[in-house]
Amino acid sequence: MNETVKYFLDESRIPKAWYNIQADLPKPAPAVLHPGTHKPVGPDDLAPLFPMELILQEVTQEREVPIPEPVREVYRQWRPSPLYRARRLEKVLQTPARIYYKYEGVSPAGSHKPNTAVAQAFYNQQAGVKRLITETGAGQWGSSLAFAGALFGLDVQIFMVRVSYDQKPYRRALMETYGARCVASPSNETESGRAILAKDPNHPGSLGIAISEAVELAVQRDDTKYALGSVLNHVLLHQTVLGLEAIAQLEMADDYPDVIVGCTGGGSNFAGIAFPFIGAQLRGGKTVRVVAVEPSACPSLTRGTYAYDFGDTAHLTPLTKMHTLGSTFTPPGFHAGGLRYHGMAPLVSHLKELGLIEATAYRQTKVFEAGVQFARAEGILPAPEANHAVKGAIDEAVRCREEGVSRAILFNLCGHGHFDMQAYMDYFAGKLEDRDYDRAELAMALAGLPSVAEPA
Amino acid sequence: MNETVKYFLDESRIPKAWYNIQADLPKPAPAVLHPGTHKPVGPDDLAPLFPMELILQEVTQEREVPIPEPVREVYRQWRPSPLYRARRLEKVLQTPARIYYKYEGVSPAGSHKPNTAVAQAFYNQQAGVKRLITETGAGQWGSSLAFAGALFGLDVQIFMVRVSYDQKPYRRALMETYGARCVASPSNETESGRAILAKDPNHPGSLGIAISEAVELAVQRDDTKYALGSVLNHVLLHQTVLGLEAIAQLEMADDYPDVIVGCTGGGSNFAGIAFPFIGAQLRGGKTVRVVAVEPSACPSLTRGTYAYDFGDTAHLTPLTKMHTLGSTFTPPGFHAGGLRYHGMAPLVSHLKELGLIEATAYRQTKVFEAGVQFARAEGILPAPEANHAVKGAIDEAVRCREEGVSRAILFNLCGHGHFDMQAYMDYFAGKLEDRDYDRAELAMALAGLPSVAEPA
Repeated sequence: MNETVKYFLDESRIPKAWYNIQADLPKPAPAVLHPGTHKPVGPDDLAPLFPMELILQEVTQEREVPIPEPVREVYRQWRPSPLYRARRLEKVLQTPARIYYKYEGVSPAGSHKPNTAVAQAFYNQQAGVKRLITETGAGQWGSSLAFAGALFGLDVQIFMVRVSYDQKPYRRALMETYGARCVASPSNETESGRAILAKDPNHPGSLGIAISEAVELAVQRDDTKYALGSVLNHVLLHQTVLGLEAIAQLEMADDYPDVIVGCTGGGSNFAGIAFPFIGAQLRGGKTVRVVAVEPSACPSLTRGTYAYDFGDTAHLTPLTKMHTLGSTFTPPGFHAGGLRYHGMAPLVSHLKELGLIEATAYRQTKVFEAGVQFARAEGILPAPEANHAVKGAIDEAVRCREEGVSRAILFNLCGHGHFDMQAYMDYFAGKLEDRDYDRAELAMALAGLPSVAEPA
Repeated sequence: MNETVKYFLDESRIPKAWYNIQADLPKPAPAVLHPGTHKPVGPDDLAPLFPMELILQEVTQEREVPIPEPVREVYRQWRPSPLYRARRLEKVLQTPARIYYKYEGVSPAGSHKPNTAVAQAFYNQQAGVKRLITETGAGQWGSSLAFAGALFGLDVQIFMVRVSYDQKPYRRALMETYGARCVASPSNETESGRAILAKDPNHPGSLGIAISEAVELAVQRDDTKYALGSVLNHVLLHQTVLGLEAIAQLEMADDYPDVIVGCTGGGSNFAGIAFPFIGAQLRGGKTVRVVAVEPSACPSLTRGTYAYDFGDTAHLTPLTKMHTLGSTFTPPGFHAGGLRYHGMAPLVSHLKELGLIEATAYRQTKVFEAGVQFARAEGILPAPEANHAVKGAIDEAVRCREEGVSRAILFNLCGHGHFDMQAYMDYFAGKLEDRDYDRAELAMALAGLPSVAEPA
């Protein structure tokens, strides 16, 4: 029947360098600005937050950034991750499309996030840092940094958005098993948190608030740094192992994608799978359609404004130009999955403006329907975030059937859903609401955008 | 630092045949007896329960049983599974031991159980079966058969022990996402279930009862068969892919185990990792110590009686000679993990009687302590069942340190614990009780053993 087609790379084929799309951009991305002066930030401005190696990765224009051997060592635990041809799904869909998916759920934390967590933990350890502070929403990132911290002997503290903290005790337990400390955000441990709680003691929290708390605490001690799981250039850079492996695996398949689909929250797994292919195109290679898929409940790319905005609610971070819903954005209560951040990675936003990628948004019941169809056909149960990519890929495959055309579709299945069964239960019970993010709330959040012009 | 050492096999190295230890036994295992006549059962007696190919595998004396290509096809999704050298754990333990572990959590269901679920689904589909009925305790087996059923187009119904059904809704949701139907056992759908409920409407259930329900229902329809996730010879046979791959992987490491440790519930993952090595020894190869580790709350190998007993509570199954706690055994309420079956696989029991394996039992807090230590060192969070093997391996490694001897220790990490975080939370909260299975209850359960002699 030949229904399982796995493209398998020897561990010697784990990339030796990450791919930096900044080297190939036709126009550089807008500068990151200091929140006070509105002038471009320099490395020293960021030094309280990150070790210098990561700051340099944030701005480097080199095409290849070598992956340190100790990071590749840890990658070897689960990398190269498998690339599959989804033959059973193709059969169910009766499509002439060739559907490929990269599967990142094989990592110990169950998602793509360790690709950058391990690198960040390594560079911080090398810089003598003892403690990392971060935030997490659905929990994929927090689990991954907890995992990486355990391997590199770093203390890890995680501000977990309160609604997730309460709803997902098992995610929390995973972080704690790795030895991390998990705190519900907004918390009483920071000024930012106390200010929010003073207004609303039952505030459900948001990623923007949790980032404020983490940043505030991180800058207070020399042995402590901040870590972010998406959005920033260096995070996207680390995820390119994904796309680089996929290129090699598709060579084994003697194929090349016509369409790449990725889900987008902050943008890191999307960048990881897509950037190496977009880079090849920019250097004269084959043109590939790239589709970013986001939830209609958190539609930064499809309904946000492209403008300078803060990364957090308390406005402690630098200003970056990105597609944003406004830094006061709180995802609506009916939204079940991750992908909850108010902004989009500046590099992903920039590519959108350059016309190198498209974006589309889906409501959640259709997304879960696609995930269940995928699980029954391919045997892997995706995380709710990954279901967005699955839905996008299925729609492309159905279009192939309707047009009678065979295209190669590649997507990233960024994690398994074993910690997300409540959302599946809600889906089966008909409890998932299908609404878009509210128009009036959106207008209000956007009205709060700072008025900052791009430097000449 | 060279801390991740993974032995990696190309998928062409997935075994082409399972290994059958019956071919190499110095003395054959006692016959399986008909529950009514107490005479050895023939293939026809088992035909209402299983397709003929599986019945023949139950009794074959051939050393190698070819793995059908469609089964290998599905295996390719995650096989060969990785074998790791646990260098970080060795460092934490300051042991001269060389610790290796095979990791089965990479399968889509997260454990070793799909190795046999896929094979069983295939043979049933080939035989024209439309529906499989089974039982599950902690849920690893039910998830795996649901997964395999989805791939081979079979309806799957699962009787889930009520206490797990109530405590583990997410396991249930996983089975349902794969399209299976999950019923709390004891249920009103069978005579066996109704009889139990009549006596105690709040009965927590047991694997023995759930097996009775599944068997009762399976024999009622020609298009329906029964499936079991452990204990039987053919199930153990299918799991030998594990040990066969490990032999090849340890050859790459230029090493061979001095000690093999496996956790035992029904015995299938233990047999999977150990039988190929024991077989090599029986054919004149190197002697290897083999240690079966079980919970002191369900101590069939260490405190059970070696006698003929039923596989289920309602006495619908054939009689097998095994280490048993009595078919009315219900695991005590304080026991958190899996490994809850009253009996041990007849082949594993037979090896114990032949002196080819040892057995030891642990209380649960020590087992979870070992699991947390492993997670922090190696980055993988084990299932509670797997923690028994981890604890056994750690104890062997500590002994190496104390004796100043470097031995090679191999164990099977049979699954990840992502569905078992409640048990970890209970462990951290100090809620796990450390007790052995009650002596008086044990005596009572054993008093109910049928008095059946081994045929001459």
